Amino acid sequence: MTISDLSVGVLNGPNLDLLGTREPEFYGEAGLNGILSALDELGTALGARVTSVQSNHEGELADWIRDVGSRQDGLLVNAAGYTHTSVVLRDALLAAEVPFVEVHLTNIWAREPFRHHSLLSDIAVGVVSGFGQDSYLLGMRALATHLRSGK
Amino acid sequence: MTISDLSVGVLNGPNLDLLGTREPEFYGEAGLNGILSALDELGTALGARVTSVQSNHEGELADWIRDVGSRQDGLLVNAAGYTHTSVVLRDALLAAEVPFVEVHLTNIWAREPFRHHSLLSDIAVGVVSGFGQDSYLLGMRALATHLRSGK
Amino acid sequence: MTISDLSVGVLNGPNLDLLGTREPEFYGEAGLNGILSALDELGTALGARVTSVQSNHEGELADWIRDVGSRQDGLLVNAAGYTHTSVVLRDALLAAEVPFVEVHLTNIWAREPFRHHSLLSDIAVGVVSGFGQDSYLLGMRALATHLRSGK
Amino acid sequence: MTISDLSVGVLNGPNLDLLGTREPEFYGEAGLNGILSALDELGTALGARVTSVQSNHEGELADWIRDVGSRQDGLLVNAAGYTHTSVVLRDALLAAEVPFVEVHLTNIWAREPFRHHSLLSDIAVGVVSGFGQDSYLLGMRALATHLRSGK
Amino acid sequence: MTISDLSVGVLNGPNLDLLGTREPEFYGEAGLNGILSALDELGTALGARVTSVQSNHEGELADWIRDVGSRQDGLLVNAAGYTHTSVVLRDALLAAEVPFVEVHLTNIWAREPFRHHSLLSDIAVGVVSGFGQDSYLLGMRALATHLRSGK
Amino acid sequence: MTISDLSVGVLNGPNLDLLGTREPEFYGEAGLNGILSALDELGTALGARVTSVQSNHEGELADWIRDVGSRQDGLLVNAAGYTHTSVVLRDALLAAEVPFVEVHLTNIWAREPFRHHSLLSDIAVGVVSGFGQDSYLLGMRALATHLRSGK
Amino acid sequence: MTISDLSVGVLNGPNLDLLGTREPEFYGEAGLNGILSALDELGTALGARVTSVQSNHEGELADWIRDVGSRQDGLLVNAAGYTHTSVVLRDALLAAEVPFVEVHLTNIWAREPFRHHSLLSDIAVGVVSGFGQDSYLLGMRALATHLRSGK
Amino acid sequence: MTISDLSVGVLNGPNLDLLGTREPEFYGEAGLNGILSALDELGTALGARVTSVQSNHEGELADWIRDVGSRQDGLLVNAAGYTHTSVVLRDALLAAEVPFVEVHLTNIWAREPFRHHSLLSDIAVGVVSGFGQDSYLLGMRALATHLRSGK
Amino acid sequence: MTISDLSVGVLNGPNLDLLGTREPEFYGEAGLNGILSALDELGTALGARVTSVQSNHEGELADWIRDVGSRQDGLLVNAAGYTHTSVVLRDALLAAEVPFVEVHLTNIWAREPFRHHSLLSDIAVGVVSGFGQDSYLLGMRALATHLRSGK
Amino acid sequence: MTISDLSVGVLNGPNLDLLGTREPEFYGEAGLNGILSALDELGTALGARVTSVQSNHEGELADWIRDVGSRQDGLLVNAAGYTHTSVVLRDALLAAEVPFVEVHLTNIWAREPFRHHSLLSDIAVGVVSGFGQDSYLLGMRALATHLRSGK
Amino acid sequence: MTISDLSVGVLNGPNLDLLGTREPEFYGEAGLNGILSALDELGTALGARVTSVQSNHEGELADWIRDVGSRQDGLLVNAAGYTHTSVVLRDALLAAEVPFVEVHLTNIWAREPFRHHSLLSDIAVGVVSGFGQDSYLLGMRALATHLRSGK
Amino acid sequence: MTISDLSVGVLNGPNLDLLGTREPEFYGEAGLNGILSALDELGTALGARVTSVQSNHEGELADWIRDVGSRQDGLLVNAAGYTHTSVVLRDALLAAEVPFVEVHLTNIWAREPFRHHSLLSDIAVGVVSGFGQDSYLLGMRALATHLRSGK
Repeated sequence: MTISDLSVGVLNGPNLDLLGTREPEFYGEAGLNGILSALDELGTALGARVTSVQSNHEGELADWIRDVGSRQDGLLVNAAGYTHTSVVLRDALLAAEVPFVEVHLTNIWAREPFRHHSLLSDIAVGVVSGFGQDSYLLGMRALATHLRSGK
Repeated sequence: MTISDLSVGVLNGPNLDLLGTREPEFYGEAGLNGILSALDELGTALGARVTSVQSNHEGELADWIRDVGSRQDGLLVNAAGYTHTSVVLRDALLAAEVPFVEVHLTNIWAREPFRHHSLLSDIAVGVVSGFGQDSYLLGMRALATHLRSGK
Repeated sequence: MTISDLSVGVLNGPNLDLLGTREPEFYGEAGLNGILSALDELGTALGARVTSVQSNHEGELADWIRDVGSRQDGLLVNAAGYTHTSVVLRDALLAAEVPFVEVHLTNIWAREPFRHHSLLSDIAVGVVSGFGQDSYLLGMRALATHLRSGK
Repeated sequence: MTISDLSVGVLNGPNLDLLGTREPEFYGEAGLNGILSALDELGTALGARVTSVQSNHEGELADWIRDVGSRQDGLLVNAAGYTHTSVVLRDALLAAEVPFVEVHLTNIWAREPFRHHSLLSDIAVGVVSGFGQDSYLLGMRALATHLRSGK
Repeated sequence: MTISDLSVGVLNGPNLDLLGTREPEFYGEAGLNGILSALDELGTALGARVTSVQSNHEGELADWIRDVGSRQDGLLVNAAGYTHTSVVLRDALLAAEVPFVEVHLTNIWAREPFRHHSLLSDIAVGVVSGFGQDSYLLGMRALATHLRSGK
Repeated sequence: MTISDLSVGVLNGPNLDLLGTREPEFYGEAGLNGILSALDELGTALGARVTSVQSNHEGELADWIRDVGSRQDGLLVNAAGYTHTSVVLRDALLAAEVPFVEVHLTNIWAREPFRHHSLLSDIAVGVVSGFGQDSYLLGMRALATHLRSGK
Repeated sequence: MTISDLSVGVLNGPNLDLLGTREPEFYGEAGLNGILSALDELGTALGARVTSVQSNHEGELADWIRDVGSRQDGLLVNAAGYTHTSVVLRDALLAAEVPFVEVHLTNIWAREPFRHHSLLSDIAVGVVSGFGQDSYLLGMRALATHLRSGK
Repeated sequence: MTISDLSVGVLNGPNLDLLGTREPEFYGEAGLNGILSALDELGTALGARVTSVQSNHEGELADWIRDVGSRQDGLLVNAAGYTHTSVVLRDALLAAEVPFVEVHLTNIWAREPFRHHSLLSDIAVGVVSGFGQDSYLLGMRALATHLRSGK
Repeated sequence: MTISDLSVGVLNGPNLDLLGTREPEFYGEAGLNGILSALDELGTALGARVTSVQSNHEGELADWIRDVGSRQDGLLVNAAGYTHTSVVLRDALLAAEVPFVEVHLTNIWAREPFRHHSLLSDIAVGVVSGFGQDSYLLGMRALATHLRSGK
Repeated sequence: MTISDLSVGVLNGPNLDLLGTREPEFYGEAGLNGILSALDELGTALGARVTSVQSNHEGELADWIRDVGSRQDGLLVNAAGYTHTSVVLRDALLAAEVPFVEVHLTNIWAREPFRHHSLLSDIAVGVVSGFGQDSYLLGMRALATHLRSGK
Repeated sequence: MTISDLSVGVLNGPNLDLLGTREPEFYGEAGLNGILSALDELGTALGARVTSVQSNHEGELADWIRDVGSRQDGLLVNAAGYTHTSVVLRDALLAAEVPFVEVHLTNIWAREPFRHHSLLSDIAVGVVSGFGQDSYLLGMRALATHLRSGK
Repeated sequence: MTISDLSVGVLNGPNLDLLGTREPEFYGEAGLNGILSALDELGTALGARVTSVQSNHEGELADWIRDVGSRQDGLLVNAAGYTHTSVVLRDALLAAEVPFVEVHLTNIWAREPFRHHSLLSDIAVGVVSGFGQDSYLLGMRALATHLRSGK
């Protein structure tokens, strides 16, 4: 496990660059950079190199899935607002044919009804939702285990 | 009131640059520039400096809300087609924590059913819909009054 | 504009006589008389004579539309609770064949779901909702502009 | 049949006093008085005395059903806008225990969806809809035949 | 009116040949022949020649509308069970471009929910429902008046 | 408790004046006067003065809530047919800011589906439904206990 | 039981003549003739004469119910595709006033959602679904028992 | 009334043993034992012996209805969470053929939407909801009156 | 067939022990023991040993499926009220991986709407509903034929 | 390609024989014979022999699919009004096991809502809708290409 | 037809650049370039110059419709994932006032339910869906015929 | 962290004792004991003592929450089939006032629609779904972090 033999891409959807400044009662005080640093650290421990993107643009995220994401062993996907509306990202993920774990900082079932339905969940390996920054770290663990299980 | 002590941002969503050329039975003959000039003039009278954006790109509009909109005292938001589909702009406006007035050139309840629901209305101060260019001017007045009321 | 050449009727639906006493977190502290005085003043400035009615009785409001409202150049309509349930007022307004602006003190989309649907909106010129007393004043401006535009 | 041994009450709901002036493309040019005269004449021919009411007030219509309608042999009911919303008139008609025929000037299924459902139809003898003034005359014939059939 | 200058077709849908034998609590004791005789007699009085069809076959009814119905001045249509399910008969009636009155022996709104919706009502002149044999006679009167009104 | 220190208003909605004559299988044989006498008697025992209204008019009921009801310590509300349709009475009760108990003579969940939903229940202290005249008496007890509990 | 004193009609709806050739994973390899032979044999054992029809034509099936089916002691009905769409066959069966058992070769609840609802079930004695040819045989047994029970 | 000639069973559904400790803002501070004591006392006054059960097990409650409840003159039923989901308890109560009153400590229409529908209400004598411990006492009075009315 | 080489388990859901005493218009007069005796007899004829359970407890039924049912060749399942609500029994049956036939004494489509949907049907071999005790016997025949067909 | 080695059947549903006379704003002026001639000509060019049927009878169309359609290499299917209601034709096409292309003269999504759903689309190779006569010609090309692709 | 006098724009939505690599069971093995070459060739034969765009960005596609698409004689539109979610592209196409044909590689009605509804179909000339690359070629033919028909 | 200062309860719902034997394509090959051992081990590492229950009985699970679960610092809850139907467990968890993490072995959004809705999610800290045994381990980590964060 000293060699990072897994590659993991992390997709951060719209407005996630605001983490740490925005609605702290929902999203906590950790900024996105803090989360990515923690992911890097955990990735190293788990033997995974981490590549990430953040964008407010649905098209840029789809481009990234095509150009970068599809070349990783697995993905962590927090599509934020696009989770509930984007057939495009669903299609991009289907085309990439890379296993991914869906993560959410907040518990999406404790919020507005339009956040209760995800266009991504049924094609994900699994979902982790509601644990703030920890959702990412747990998702990374879940993904690494899944990828190493050869399943 | 001689000093413009209020700052107001105006978000113009997709296809609004076509105003004056497009479907005049719905949108009237005033172009977007004409509307913005009238807003500037009214803004001056009300003591408000006006900053605006128009884009067809959901991501650019979200970026603008983050970078520019969040630094204004208030916003006029005509998200056009994104009104009915964009969780992303809703989230960006929630994160900006700036009061905004939702405006529509047309009476959205007299059009197709999918235009009857807005993802923005319940988090807006209020809504002005159906008065063509005047919707913007009334929205500006509503916003200025709201901001000055200290409420 | 020194001559009041426009006539504007103002329909105030049920319970609006309680304004200033009732649920101030929703409706503000301005009483109905205060609103009507402000409307008179603005009407004078815009060249419009203002006639108004308030009633808790659906039938009285329909009678007023038939007897008084139908003889005005335009109407401001705040049907309050009848907004969501009265086919009768809709029919009376259709029969009157007078353009009207729908106004609401509160933002009806930020309240109970049954307040999100109006039986009047699709036949109104437009809607102003959420600005307290200012909704009436903005509605008056919208109506005057609409009527003078000869549209 | 020379003796008018049947008594028939005619309930005319809100805005029907406007017949002849209102939306002629829907309701034709016959005024309510013209319809009632024709009903009187037909009533005489069929041996029926006709009593009628018109009101915009749901409560007055319910009062009339209690005080007058319940003492007739049968009723013609055109509840207009209350057709679709009034549990009160339904309850009043149930309490009156008098057979009634539901009539509509217009074809309610060719209009807005909210007019497609009636709260009265399932407790009526039958329904006549769409023939303008003739709906009343046909309804009178239907009622007379029904009452004389002893059924 | 001594000359029968109007032609009226009468479409009787499936199972109506059973009238007089079937479920008398719903359909009364008059057989279809009795109804057609009464219609002939009334037709003569109103100056209308009557042609009729009864079939259990959707296709035969559509053929008849094409071959016979479309050559009449107007139609009485009791499509019985096909009322609620046949886009084909709707299309045939639209293609025939002949005004028609929809009639039902029973009050369809007092029966099972699937009988509350008709695929024909919105393109009919009007509807008469619930008066047994009298529905046909009233429908004939309505149709004759409609056709003679030149409307 | 010898002094009647509580004031209780009783709102009786449309058609309730017909009690004792109407649909006895639903409403029993007790007339409204009988119920009110029994309420007076129980009120005296519980230390409550009883004031009541009955009207078929939605507006009169709303007026009464404003003028009389809002000055009582608590209300018993049987809005009858308006229970299911009146946003106006809901708004009037909200504005009155007086605790009320909703009562129904019949078990509304054992009747037509449109009677299963009440616009008043969620803002009531509680609901008593289905016990005939006894619903009022139990509602009076519930209200008195609630008011005296200082809750 | 040596005398066949029961008469049983078997209605086979559209496409059932294809049994044995069509979609064997759903319908098995037994042809319709094989099923009818087995039914005859079982009928003889149970004292029942069997008469059957197969047609793709809704009208022919309705005619058969009227002309033949209504004269039997009971019916086995496999209306196939018409099960889910035919008010006409429902009406014909109601008019025939003969008890019937609904049978399906396949388990209709394990197939497309539009096959989950039958227009016939609530007026049948009972339903047997999912056992291939055996559904008919079980239905015959159920029908014979039902008829002999005098219930 | 000195002899307790009525027998009343009280069914307390899941989690009601927690009363007095759990969510006091909803359920008040009275424990279940306190409620049962008060019921005993009131029962004595009304001439009724009280038997009760509390269980978190749907099956135990159904067993009790079969074994004990069915032998009482009447029941008070607070099925708590099973109110909204248990066809089994509905069937058990139907089978017991004993009149029952449905009671709820809280106003179920002021809580989550899934609590607004009860599988028991339409087969109950009536419902009392929202008065805390008093709901039980009022329900006991309602039941006693109902049972003594011989209705 | 002289040797009973098939094992069949019979699951009887809640309240079925009341058969013969309960709602005879729905369930007939045969008690559960009578049904089980008849099943034993038929089982012997068909070469099947019959094991059965009856419980009001969802958990006990699930335990039985795990401990006993899963060791049978096939099951007859009458889950009664749990048919419509129990994901648990569905999961238990899925886990048991034993073919089962769903049976109902009554015709569930002729009863309340909430009984029209079963959580078990789509994973059953087939369904027999509406024939009283005979549903069990027919289900046993269907199951034996299914098991012996090796399919 | 000089030899017509493909056989193509063309199913024309109800009322299509009226083409050229009926509702020209929807269906154009080309008659069905004109369309079939053009299809023959195109078929020759593409190496396909064309066989066709037109009927208003659902059963005849199902018979044709069984007897003729199932022997073709592929089908063009314009089921007209039956598109939206016929499970029977869906079943017939499934049984025929012949690839088919669904065609519509009009754009069915620009018409009444009940035309937006087809019972055939999900089992078709594909759909061509909205191009008048050209829909058939394009469908023929699509079918020929599909059949020759060996797919 | 030797001169290319028609201009046709081709809009390719998100992920279509992946054609040939992605989910071949759905989209075939032809890459987007292959499709565009075939379109060029067919365009030349039909006298049409072809201009195209592919983007994953909703905004870029809307920009292209405004800047390029609106200047063509007609458009082929495969909006891919945006078909089902983009009011913005609908609005852009409405504003462009250029006739367009909607094409899909796959049969969208044979896939997930959220792909069954298009926000574009009702404003398109027509739709071609399900024929892989051939959908584009057929769409081009349909568009050319439509444009040349002067309709 | 050498001292286990946290107590964690693990609720395992119905059929989970079958893990390792049942539907391995869904649930993997790890038995429940294996999962609990792994949890114990992880718990020790995280300073948490683990207590667990498994039952098929809704009531036993509710009892355990009351008696054992409510005394833990936090809970892991896999309610299996009760997740989607049990208001009782929701109420028990609310009453326990202990934070809990909802876990599922499978990805519930990739299964039948009735598994997409949980009655527990909105009151959980968060949800982990889809990772087999790893869902429990990740849930334990999430819970421990949550509890230690003092939030």
